[in-house]
Amino acid sequence: MNTIKALTLSSALELLREKKISVQELTEACYRQIERLNPKLNAFITVIDLQDALNAQLPGDSAPSSNALRGIPIAVKDLFDTAGIRTTAGSKFFAENIPEQDAFVIEKLKQAGAIILGKTNTHEIALGVTGNNPHYGTARNPWDTTRIPGGSSSGSAIAVATGMALGALGTDTGGSIRIPASLCGIVGLKPTFGRLSLRGVFPLSWNLDHVGPLVKCVKDAALMLQVISVYDPIDPASVKKSAGDELDHLDDHVEGRKIALGIGKFIEAAEPEVLEAVHKAARVFESLGCKVQEVDVSWLKEAALANKTMTQSDGAAVHRDRLKEHPDWFGEDIRRRLEDGAKTTSTEYILARRTQAEVKKRFEHFFEDHDFLITPTTPIAAPTIEGHDAVEQAGRLTRFTAPFNLAGLPALSLPCGFTKEGLPIGLQIISRAWSDAKVLNAGYVFEQATEWHAQFPEVS
Amino acid sequence: MNTIKALTLSSALELLREKKISVQELTEACYRQIERLNPKLNAFITVIDLQDALNAQLPGDSAPSSNALRGIPIAVKDLFDTAGIRTTAGSKFFAENIPEQDAFVIEKLKQAGAIILGKTNTHEIALGVTGNNPHYGTARNPWDTTRIPGGSSSGSAIAVATGMALGALGTDTGGSIRIPASLCGIVGLKPTFGRLSLRGVFPLSWNLDHVGPLVKCVKDAALMLQVISVYDPIDPASVKKSAGDELDHLDDHVEGRKIALGIGKFIEAAEPEVLEAVHKAARVFESLGCKVQEVDVSWLKEAALANKTMTQSDGAAVHRDRLKEHPDWFGEDIRRRLEDGAKTTSTEYILARRTQAEVKKRFEHFFEDHDFLITPTTPIAAPTIEGHDAVEQAGRLTRFTAPFNLAGLPALSLPCGFTKEGLPIGLQIISRAWSDAKVLNAGYVFEQATEWHAQFPEVS
Repeated sequence: MNTIKALTLSSALELLREKKISVQELTEACYRQIERLNPKLNAFITVIDLQDALNAQLPGDSAPSSNALRGIPIAVKDLFDTAGIRTTAGSKFFAENIPEQDAFVIEKLKQAGAIILGKTNTHEIALGVTGNNPHYGTARNPWDTTRIPGGSSSGSAIAVATGMALGALGTDTGGSIRIPASLCGIVGLKPTFGRLSLRGVFPLSWNLDHVGPLVKCVKDAALMLQVISVYDPIDPASVKKSAGDELDHLDDHVEGRKIALGIGKFIEAAEPEVLEAVHKAARVFESLGCKVQEVDVSWLKEAALANKTMTQSDGAAVHRDRLKEHPDWFGEDIRRRLEDGAKTTSTEYILARRTQAEVKKRFEHFFEDHDFLITPTTPIAAPTIEGHDAVEQAGRLTRFTAPFNLAGLPALSLPCGFTKEGLPIGLQIISRAWSDAKVLNAGYVFEQATEWHAQFPEVS
Repeated sequence: MNTIKALTLSSALELLREKKISVQELTEACYRQIERLNPKLNAFITVIDLQDALNAQLPGDSAPSSNALRGIPIAVKDLFDTAGIRTTAGSKFFAENIPEQDAFVIEKLKQAGAIILGKTNTHEIALGVTGNNPHYGTARNPWDTTRIPGGSSSGSAIAVATGMALGALGTDTGGSIRIPASLCGIVGLKPTFGRLSLRGVFPLSWNLDHVGPLVKCVKDAALMLQVISVYDPIDPASVKKSAGDELDHLDDHVEGRKIALGIGKFIEAAEPEVLEAVHKAARVFESLGCKVQEVDVSWLKEAALANKTMTQSDGAAVHRDRLKEHPDWFGEDIRRRLEDGAKTTSTEYILARRTQAEVKKRFEHFFEDHDFLITPTTPIAAPTIEGHDAVEQAGRLTRFTAPFNLAGLPALSLPCGFTKEGLPIGLQIISRAWSDAKVLNAGYVFEQATEWHAQFPEVS
């Protein structure tokens, strides 16, 4: 299993079905990667004992998703409750927190036969994008360990990029799945708000949090999404859709689709080589029969700002008692942002909510004219760990991702190139609400036409 | 036309179609009531010149709703923009405000052939329930002019109850349609949030405001709702429903429907004779073949409190500049509530929003077990104008109505009895989101089985 870091979840399922590999062998291969690389990269806060992990598999039932992930090693961000397994939220407050119940989506993974290997490192309480966690260690980018992996789902992205796991769960409030996916050269999906249950996931914002998969290719994202995309009658955020779009197969053509390529002052703050990679991606879509139109989307700026205002004040509401009792237990950047959030007036918050309603409406019209919007996922490739302020990094790196948390739209990040320094560049594909399958289809077709997803980091 | 005060909108349409009355005669009958009673009751802030009103009728087009209200005199709350007609929002700030465009729903009324007679009195900026307006006069209850008509859609309820108009539009943020309907002995509907456009309606809360009809009977409510229930692509609050429930005919049976009769400490704060009337109404439904079950709904209290927190802070956000520049231009009760609202922290507001999400989910489950919830509309019949604090009255009178603004559910108020003093008592019927037609059906059947709607005030 020298190829574990190149093995996709879907290929592994085939190998397992054809009995070319056993669950034990597959899982052990991941554990070897963890042993070898985790001390360097700090992807995991807690690694579950191999035998315990294997034993925790649930038997399949008669549901169609049962066995869909049978024997697949999965890592989950340390924000998801795991029964009997410490769940820290990357915070000192929860260093000893052992939940009694699994989060709803963890239960779904287990019911589908997934093997949960451990709990991955996260920017503290998921409020940040660097993964530099003062309590559980600095997560590092596998492409260059002097650089950030992106966050807050840092460890989930690292684990998948290096074959420590074949898939991972993350959460995304302003880009926390898509940013580390982009910076680590893998695939990350933030689905439509309401599609996935947030029950048992430590909240940052009741209004902007999303759960989603981090994986090596788009097909894997569809597989994981299908398993966890189950209506939860108890979670206030979970929406019952009578007829959803189909996740169980991916179309291999996109002819005639109308793609808006985001341009304008707001987008062009990105580094030239990032912009160039995304423009090249647009030409790939054109060569596949899509109609590409350049559209100024500078109005996204207001959406990104509203998302920031809400994230900080929503976080301050969630953490109000902890902020009062032990402000010093928070890292410096977190304390600063929560204190800012707590100072936000209801008027400021209400105006941000109004912006949210207006932006949602605007996107409704936007996606009457276009099937997809494409943008860079992040304006820069992975910056260095040293020499940057975490709060400023958050503002900079969430610029293109946060508007789609505000609007609750499905947004996929997938690799679309490398910088001259050899760092991955991410392409973001967005569509209208509940069009998760369409977004995955577009990503799948792009992936088939390019080779960017088949590159893997050499950790030195 | 001595019977104008007993004439329903639907009967008037029949008389017009059969040419037993002309539009001119009908309109003049309303104007005579206005001339006779408005000086006493203060229902209108602005009465439109008769000839201008007749001339402002728009020609019908090919839409099915066209001509649905042809020749029907309608009054609208002075919160709706009317092109060329002063629109004050009951506020000193807008004493000279003449909009250029009609509100979206006003346009729909005109397109259906309605005749807009004038702009009705409202509790200042719609933030209150008494109708005691310091700038435009005290609105009075036609059943007893020493008592409040309820509010904030005070004038709309008075106008309909006395035949000054055959139907009226109101707005409802915590009960502002249903409360005056209840206190004036008429029918008022707050439809599902998202069904009606709020464009061109002066906002109090972007999150809780609803538009709806005040009329003499349930059939009239269905007629008006059908005309104004049109998707507005520009309004952020307007929701596009591919398949709605049918509003164009009302079923005349309710056999087998499951009705929850609200009980428990929260409900039982109502006056005994109010409770008695509602329990009698439950027995009427039972006699019509419904299954009635008493259900403790004391958890509505939290919903009412969250609605209050949000209304005040949402209002403070909308009026932020006016509150800063001319706090003295607001009435004392309004200033007090807006200042309280402005002091609300984002944390308090966010927790109220969380309650809102939880309450919505709770109602989803509630209406899996029950078809309808019935409660009193208000815990008391109309109190006296003198001797009460407006802010306290708001808390008291919105108690049973506000939870359904928070949840966005359709809620109908219709007459179900009288107090010993001869004041009307209102029954509230609520159902799940987008079941406006079901709520109207239940009200219609109740109305057919009782005589409460056929009582009219003698203004002395």
